[in-house]
Amino acid sequence: MKSSMTLAEAFKQSEYPVVGHGKRNFRMLLEAFEGKDGLEESDMYGKGETIERFQDKMAAYLGKQSAVFFPSGTMAQQIALRIRCDESGKRKVAYHPLSHLEIHEQDGLKELHRIETVLLADENRLIRLADVRQLGDDVACLLLELPQREIGGQLPSYDELEAIAWHCRGRGIKLHLDGARLFEILPYYRKTAAEICALFDSVYVSFYKGLGGIAGAILAGEEAFADQSKVWKRRHGGDLISMYPYIVSSDHYFDRRIGKMAQYYEEALELARLYNDAGESIRTVPAVPVCNMFHVHADLPKTALEQALADVCEATGVGLNSWVKALDDDRSAYEVSVGDRYADVPKDKLEAAFRLLREKLSE
Amino acid sequence: MKSSMTLAEAFKQSEYPVVGHGKRNFRMLLEAFEGKDGLEESDMYGKGETIERFQDKMAAYLGKQSAVFFPSGTMAQQIALRIRCDESGKRKVAYHPLSHLEIHEQDGLKELHRIETVLLADENRLIRLADVRQLGDDVACLLLELPQREIGGQLPSYDELEAIAWHCRGRGIKLHLDGARLFEILPYYRKTAAEICALFDSVYVSFYKGLGGIAGAILAGEEAFADQSKVWKRRHGGDLISMYPYIVSSDHYFDRRIGKMAQYYEEALELARLYNDAGESIRTVPAVPVCNMFHVHADLPKTALEQALADVCEATGVGLNSWVKALDDDRSAYEVSVGDRYADVPKDKLEAAFRLLREKLSE
Repeated sequence: MKSSMTLAEAFKQSEYPVVGHGKRNFRMLLEAFEGKDGLEESDMYGKGETIERFQDKMAAYLGKQSAVFFPSGTMAQQIALRIRCDESGKRKVAYHPLSHLEIHEQDGLKELHRIETVLLADENRLIRLADVRQLGDDVACLLLELPQREIGGQLPSYDELEAIAWHCRGRGIKLHLDGARLFEILPYYRKTAAEICALFDSVYVSFYKGLGGIAGAILAGEEAFADQSKVWKRRHGGDLISMYPYIVSSDHYFDRRIGKMAQYYEEALELARLYNDAGESIRTVPAVPVCNMFHVHADLPKTALEQALADVCEATGVGLNSWVKALDDDRSAYEVSVGDRYADVPKDKLEAAFRLLREKLSE
Repeated sequence: MKSSMTLAEAFKQSEYPVVGHGKRNFRMLLEAFEGKDGLEESDMYGKGETIERFQDKMAAYLGKQSAVFFPSGTMAQQIALRIRCDESGKRKVAYHPLSHLEIHEQDGLKELHRIETVLLADENRLIRLADVRQLGDDVACLLLELPQREIGGQLPSYDELEAIAWHCRGRGIKLHLDGARLFEILPYYRKTAAEICALFDSVYVSFYKGLGGIAGAILAGEEAFADQSKVWKRRHGGDLISMYPYIVSSDHYFDRRIGKMAQYYEEALELARLYNDAGESIRTVPAVPVCNMFHVHADLPKTALEQALADVCEATGVGLNSWVKALDDDRSAYEVSVGDRYADVPKDKLEAAFRLLREKLSE
């Protein structure tokens, strides 16, 4: 049976969506505010109990002196790098060629802050210690993204991470953690967030990736750094009169899901095994995930993989993914992110879906 | 009787607060989402029905081709000016010395966009046509704030506003409206928002001033301008994955209060008369308000005015204002903004309060 729906439509209607936490709808906000006291006061331009309590909670969790709530990671990270450049009098920072700053921010770092970038490693692999050793004295800060999302969520070994941190400290290069998915990697490293963050001078974490919040970010570091980041937040237009809709929901989903990261990781390992057993034309990157996410690569044109996924979805009710992107004319890929939904997919349905996928891929 | 409370405490506990719409607490969000369908989908990075419908509604209301929702006016206006500079190849913009951009944004326009500013008029008066005529050919854009908040919310005559607009058009200077309080001035000018905005190339409006929303802003102008503003929104870190908490509440409070602007204006006229009848040491700026706001100036040191207001508050239950700022050692002032609360203050209580204020000020 061939599905006549687009993959996005088929996924949307699927009985058993496999990826993510659920639909991004108004319920997410309503749930976070359920039972909240309507008389609780709004934060006011970064001040007030609602924002300060959450910032203190996150500073403690991340093991940093001070934490500042931002509307977005894009804003928080540009500002982190700008502060390090201004402190050192240098105008260069280093990061991976597929860093969020390089490919998803319309060059804000360059256009707004006039910061030059050194791209370390190549697009298909992690930054290694050997790459970091090549950095010159003109680099103010190295940004490391853990896990490296655009290559499937890969991680260096913890030993190598420590070696990179020591090298940077010795060379006077500040180290910033793009921790958009920091919570998600704690089970693999078997470390606390504070232990990992201790290797870094500053860290950004997100509340709408693995935690499934609405929006918002925390930037944490030493107190002077945090204070300076508030000045830049005002300059960027991010010092909103009221951010409690994001703060309360971030706090809610942090509490609700922070204890489930090990479960998502185990489930991602299981799901990746199913993909890797589905025939020679399809595989996961990395082969063995290190967190709740991985990429799926197939030796098939985009449209063929879309058709196969839509067919599987319509025949079995199992929505493996809602989209596919082309790598080139003959190969395609997509990102998988395991959240609350995975546990609700009956195992027999999931296995039936992968049996059918294997058939479709070998046609 | 002398109050032993601070003015802020006395105001907080007052039975009849005179200014504003109400407390900024979680209820504002809960009210906006009451009865909303939890299954309605979130906006996604500026796309989706929730955001597009509201943007279209505001574009139509403002009479502009296109409107873009922003988390803040700080972000929206810097971006508006940047686009005009880039279009024209000029690096200068002009505005009032007490513009929000000049005094409340930590110099974001200069630090992030490297735009030079020409300050027109002086701190105590409006920008006049004669000031605008002096602008050189190196100015890309003039920003006019209507009403000019920091001088009590003053307005030029509509004729002069039109003359300024015609002059700018003739000289190739783009004209941007800081309409943080645009809705509030429509009753005085007896114009629609679209009629006023037609004089300007672009306009920013706010949803948490007279409308009493939670946060958020609209930037409107021609389509190419709006499209370009989205690129800069991404660069600023303002293209949030979900802004529906602000969009839905902005829409809710727009609908709830847009029809009340004439009432607030009439009430502000009444309240200003009471102040101006309270003795020679106190007066409003402007003497006759042109919208729902005005400033109160007193020939008294800050602490003396605070004490008088706190005493009145404790004796009559009427909270005239929660704060006072010093102008110099002998003079002080505060801003008054009329909203929903004013109508709930019994007239006899209000008159009793002003009788007592008059006594206190003549002591």
